[in-house]
Amino acid sequence: MKKKSPKIHIPLTVPKSKEVIYKKNFDLVTQKSGNLFLFAGDQRVEHLNGDFYGEGISVEDLDPEHLFKIAAKADIGAFASQFGYIAKYGRDYKSVPYIVKLNSKTNLVNVAQEDPHSFSWISVEQVVKLQKQSGLKIPGVGYTIYIGSEHESQMLFEAAQIVLEAHKHGMIVVLWMYPRGKAVLDEKDAHLIAGAVNVASGLGADFAKVNFPHAIRADPFESFNEVTTAAGRTNVVCAGGSHIDEESFLENLHRQINECGARGSATGRNVHQRNEGEAIAFCNAINAIVVEGKTVKQAMTFLK
Amino acid sequence: MKKKSPKIHIPLTVPKSKEVIYKKNFDLVTQKSGNLFLFAGDQRVEHLNGDFYGEGISVEDLDPEHLFKIAAKADIGAFASQFGYIAKYGRDYKSVPYIVKLNSKTNLVNVAQEDPHSFSWISVEQVVKLQKQSGLKIPGVGYTIYIGSEHESQMLFEAAQIVLEAHKHGMIVVLWMYPRGKAVLDEKDAHLIAGAVNVASGLGADFAKVNFPHAIRADPFESFNEVTTAAGRTNVVCAGGSHIDEESFLENLHRQINECGARGSATGRNVHQRNEGEAIAFCNAINAIVVEGKTVKQAMTFLK
Amino acid sequence: MKKKSPKIHIPLTVPKSKEVIYKKNFDLVTQKSGNLFLFAGDQRVEHLNGDFYGEGISVEDLDPEHLFKIAAKADIGAFASQFGYIAKYGRDYKSVPYIVKLNSKTNLVNVAQEDPHSFSWISVEQVVKLQKQSGLKIPGVGYTIYIGSEHESQMLFEAAQIVLEAHKHGMIVVLWMYPRGKAVLDEKDAHLIAGAVNVASGLGADFAKVNFPHAIRADPFESFNEVTTAAGRTNVVCAGGSHIDEESFLENLHRQINECGARGSATGRNVHQRNEGEAIAFCNAINAIVVEGKTVKQAMTFLK
Amino acid sequence: MKKKSPKIHIPLTVPKSKEVIYKKNFDLVTQKSGNLFLFAGDQRVEHLNGDFYGEGISVEDLDPEHLFKIAAKADIGAFASQFGYIAKYGRDYKSVPYIVKLNSKTNLVNVAQEDPHSFSWISVEQVVKLQKQSGLKIPGVGYTIYIGSEHESQMLFEAAQIVLEAHKHGMIVVLWMYPRGKAVLDEKDAHLIAGAVNVASGLGADFAKVNFPHAIRADPFESFNEVTTAAGRTNVVCAGGSHIDEESFLENLHRQINECGARGSATGRNVHQRNEGEAIAFCNAINAIVVEGKTVKQAMTFLK
Amino acid sequence: MKKKSPKIHIPLTVPKSKEVIYKKNFDLVTQKSGNLFLFAGDQRVEHLNGDFYGEGISVEDLDPEHLFKIAAKADIGAFASQFGYIAKYGRDYKSVPYIVKLNSKTNLVNVAQEDPHSFSWISVEQVVKLQKQSGLKIPGVGYTIYIGSEHESQMLFEAAQIVLEAHKHGMIVVLWMYPRGKAVLDEKDAHLIAGAVNVASGLGADFAKVNFPHAIRADPFESFNEVTTAAGRTNVVCAGGSHIDEESFLENLHRQINECGARGSATGRNVHQRNEGEAIAFCNAINAIVVEGKTVKQAMTFLK
Repeated sequence: MKKKSPKIHIPLTVPKSKEVIYKKNFDLVTQKSGNLFLFAGDQRVEHLNGDFYGEGISVEDLDPEHLFKIAAKADIGAFASQFGYIAKYGRDYKSVPYIVKLNSKTNLVNVAQEDPHSFSWISVEQVVKLQKQSGLKIPGVGYTIYIGSEHESQMLFEAAQIVLEAHKHGMIVVLWMYPRGKAVLDEKDAHLIAGAVNVASGLGADFAKVNFPHAIRADPFESFNEVTTAAGRTNVVCAGGSHIDEESFLENLHRQINECGARGSATGRNVHQRNEGEAIAFCNAINAIVVEGKTVKQAMTFLK
Repeated sequence: MKKKSPKIHIPLTVPKSKEVIYKKNFDLVTQKSGNLFLFAGDQRVEHLNGDFYGEGISVEDLDPEHLFKIAAKADIGAFASQFGYIAKYGRDYKSVPYIVKLNSKTNLVNVAQEDPHSFSWISVEQVVKLQKQSGLKIPGVGYTIYIGSEHESQMLFEAAQIVLEAHKHGMIVVLWMYPRGKAVLDEKDAHLIAGAVNVASGLGADFAKVNFPHAIRADPFESFNEVTTAAGRTNVVCAGGSHIDEESFLENLHRQINECGARGSATGRNVHQRNEGEAIAFCNAINAIVVEGKTVKQAMTFLK
Repeated sequence: MKKKSPKIHIPLTVPKSKEVIYKKNFDLVTQKSGNLFLFAGDQRVEHLNGDFYGEGISVEDLDPEHLFKIAAKADIGAFASQFGYIAKYGRDYKSVPYIVKLNSKTNLVNVAQEDPHSFSWISVEQVVKLQKQSGLKIPGVGYTIYIGSEHESQMLFEAAQIVLEAHKHGMIVVLWMYPRGKAVLDEKDAHLIAGAVNVASGLGADFAKVNFPHAIRADPFESFNEVTTAAGRTNVVCAGGSHIDEESFLENLHRQINECGARGSATGRNVHQRNEGEAIAFCNAINAIVVEGKTVKQAMTFLK
Repeated sequence: MKKKSPKIHIPLTVPKSKEVIYKKNFDLVTQKSGNLFLFAGDQRVEHLNGDFYGEGISVEDLDPEHLFKIAAKADIGAFASQFGYIAKYGRDYKSVPYIVKLNSKTNLVNVAQEDPHSFSWISVEQVVKLQKQSGLKIPGVGYTIYIGSEHESQMLFEAAQIVLEAHKHGMIVVLWMYPRGKAVLDEKDAHLIAGAVNVASGLGADFAKVNFPHAIRADPFESFNEVTTAAGRTNVVCAGGSHIDEESFLENLHRQINECGARGSATGRNVHQRNEGEAIAFCNAINAIVVEGKTVKQAMTFLK
Repeated sequence: MKKKSPKIHIPLTVPKSKEVIYKKNFDLVTQKSGNLFLFAGDQRVEHLNGDFYGEGISVEDLDPEHLFKIAAKADIGAFASQFGYIAKYGRDYKSVPYIVKLNSKTNLVNVAQEDPHSFSWISVEQVVKLQKQSGLKIPGVGYTIYIGSEHESQMLFEAAQIVLEAHKHGMIVVLWMYPRGKAVLDEKDAHLIAGAVNVASGLGADFAKVNFPHAIRADPFESFNEVTTAAGRTNVVCAGGSHIDEESFLENLHRQINECGARGSATGRNVHQRNEGEAIAFCNAINAIVVEGKTVKQAMTFLK
């Protein structure tokens, strides 16, 4: 078992004059716990309408405003979305801390056809400008890297520039680290995910969002320790993945954090595919584990 | 049935000092109705001369000035064309509100040969400069994105930059959203078109121009509701498509708007392939439905 | 039969302060007739040495200065060449109006191997600077677009930028419009050439240089009317093509202008492959038809 | 046997005003010996987690801080790592001279799939800025070139620019020179490695890091003389390669330096895969040979 | 037989204020004869170590300084090398006029694998800056273009920009013109080389370095006349090619210059593969023919 201290290591890419802002942003997204509950809404582009309309999905999820309502009313650390959504709804949801997802692509072209590449839509400077002219809370930005893609090199460059620019303004960077491409045989191999986290660290990311490794040769939670230890001062959060039952979800999350040293959760579908009331309750349960150090049993009380 | 309110949600990408101009531009192109009738003339490049000369097409349509005459004399919200046409004829047609179509490509290379890509010819800054030096009415710009193309990522980047830049000047952005590429099996699948509208929203588009979905498993009008609801605060307008009889055209349009929550129409061939008199009459009929809330029967009176 | 008026439609991309210069440049290259006789010398790069040395070609044509001598002594509207030639010989041929051909490529890579792409060598700004520091007459610039090439999109972008920049300085733009690429089955199809002219118009070109359509289903002169009518306010000039006998050449040209509304001629090989005396005489014959409205019979008098 | 003098040839790309700084940086990384012991930690990205976790590797190596501890406590010339690691740990390890590795890629895509390309993550200007705002010791930068890759040309351009920019600030440049790509049949051929060093010289590198050639037709130490002589005023250091026993390692190193004119060592795995105590001892042994001119026997005393 | 006058045609791309410098640079590299003897050392990158080490090559040639010694002590017009070599050795060889070779690539990837592309390492502006801060004599720059390569268009753009920039500073440009690529069937065809020289002229090159055509259908010296005449005011120099016996070399050179109008020689291997004494003697013999108008017999006296 491994438990990291909540001490903030302010990276040297943050200028002295921005250290207070960086710390403030870090405290905001982690609710002063050092752990991040990121409510992820960027799939509206990444997965098109597949995650938002269909069997087993609340009809409320079809309206983009559904996610903003949840983000505003539930206990979360930050809400990740594209700048266009934030610009359209932000005026009515000013209390939400936003992570602007800088790059996104659709899932139409698969790896067999072409290795993934996904370039920034807008720059950190433009996000900073948006923040200033709107008065929104934008403590950080997000970016996806597909390591193992033939286009990896361009994404590494973009990510490095984003980290430098974001830190220059005291902002937090979350890197979505996904091994993907014809060269990647097993995207959920723990050893490979540890490598992905190395890359995030080398790029200076504050948080690396990864998929939880699957169990092949070993207990996945044990394997996951390789990932979080390799991460060093980069904080690892796991993607929530596809819809599973609530108690299993919370138990996995509790073990990731308390047994493996994960520093939070990045959950989307498991939240927004529910109706507003259930989504908020489930957020609050997740937040209880991630931020308040509650047990699964305690967290489950939010759901009944 | 879904009916959106004509309330204008000014996006936060529009600076405070430009909110009045944005609202003025929005009111201009929607004739204060919240709905847009976009007369689309950009096919002169996109479809080369195929839409303008041949059997069943008025000989008047061969001369590019035909479209300007219609745009000037008929009731429309805005006329979309390339900057070169606007620069050549605009001096004689100063009353027309122009949407400058920023990118265009020919239809010579098909998808089997190469996935589509279409880059901006000119920047929003250059459009703003053209507007200032000419005194033309240019309330907005247009751009086509082919989601599902292997070149999607570059078009997403360009579109995001265009939205930011246009909103900075209080201008309206219309995104032509077309799923196209070897990865796209059915360009008119409602679920996919809903996804295309998600992308337009994520990019902050004011209007998304899409093809009306076809009927495979369901009533297309029912399917279209998925699209307009998913669109949220992004306004959906349907392309007019190829030439069909007038009454069917107007009935479809009336249902799109009144049953499905579409916010207008983007029509080209169905208008300009007629002679000037008939084209103007048909525009006025369309406008009656889109902007004035008339019935099909009322609209049909323009045609006799 | 179609005859356009020589009225100059100054495009709105020309700023008010440059309208006088634009008109002066237009008058210079059209010798105040509205029609352009462009003496084309850019094949020295495009066709390498094939057009300049070999059987049936005057030995004088091997020396690049041959073209400058013709351009200086014959009646022409403008001489098109690459900036390097103009910089080397211009000092001794200051009376010639030059069209700087901005892009050129060799003919070594054929379409079966790779679709054509040809990027600008120098910018309009650099041409303007060359003009200022040299005192040369440079009323305009030229650029080739291969529509139907997989690289079409980049050439469309470059051409649009060139038009904006040239008009900003009151300069004329001639676009060489050639359908070419694996997707192009028949480069001389009239309907396709009409489409190419649409593209030139959409880009704001002042002149579009095209190949004369061939006769497949119809009289080519009749077909060519589609092209010139579709062109609207963009002036169409035909490439001279390969060497044919003088009288046929002049008859074709006379019909293009007087029956079809072509606005001039762009001739290279048919001129420079002759010795200096014959080349000058032939230029003067062409000019008589293009600019002075003479008959073929009158023009033929220059040749004997 | 070949022994170069420790004279510093300050390249003319270093401006006069920066010659003192350049000399200071050169003396720092060579500990005034003219020879460089570079402790290489950049494999955390290049080799993902494969070099840091697994059989035969000290469990301490999984934590990125392990390398910083060694770098701070052992005798080394400089420690090479990515900017993100340096920004995260540098505050606690201010005594270490850092070489910022500007480009890095993962090893997922192999040469059979695609020739390697690896672009800079950050610019020299950004490193200089990081140095100034952090107060860290950053005497130089590193960059990898894969000659023989189809993407070689872009890396040559980037490297040339890096040399110019680094020298402008008086910084040292180490180029990792690896022949790699489908065109490269034998990456460790001495003649080819000599060519790689030629390229590094042509680019103005201060140090070229190469793999030691293998023995095919000749004694590798003899072959290596071709490399170091061809290098002229560019200093050659050999990569340490995979883990071998300590005495063999030190003997090879001693011969490279004393028989072949190598100017140091660039070692990673052979150091950091040991626990902290052993790693430090082994560093000190290496340093004794590289910098202090000790014998293998003398160096071995550090290890017991 | 063709003999050009040594009159300098200063191109109009040279601003008036730089005409004196241009003339000075032209006189420097041609030793006031109008003819250039370029000692070419850029193969250290282009051919890796193959030209510098091996059977039949003086062992002195392995050390890069060998070339600088020759350049400093022999009669030559200019020495071509990459900026890194010049920056490292220039301080000790300040008397040498340098042509900075701006682009270079290795010979590892052959044409069958990929058509050649070779981009600039540094800009003319950076060369000018290097010249100013070092006080070196840098009268000009060099650049290689592979016409017929699929990447030709990018090299044409770069070359055009280099000419404009170099002339802006009064510097001389030498273009290495090599037809190469899958589309090129015979790199040494005289007609094709004449085309390559056309391209160099169109780009405004001061000198074009070409391979001497081989004899297929005709006497190569006769064929070469096509090349030099087509070149007009661009000066043609032939590459020395691989090592041949001295007398044959000098005879060929004498005929190129005196029968065909070549304006010099660009020789590398035939010089530097000899020991210093022989290399200097051979340079002096070449120079006697190129610059001093000596006979072969007179030139041969330098060698004994």
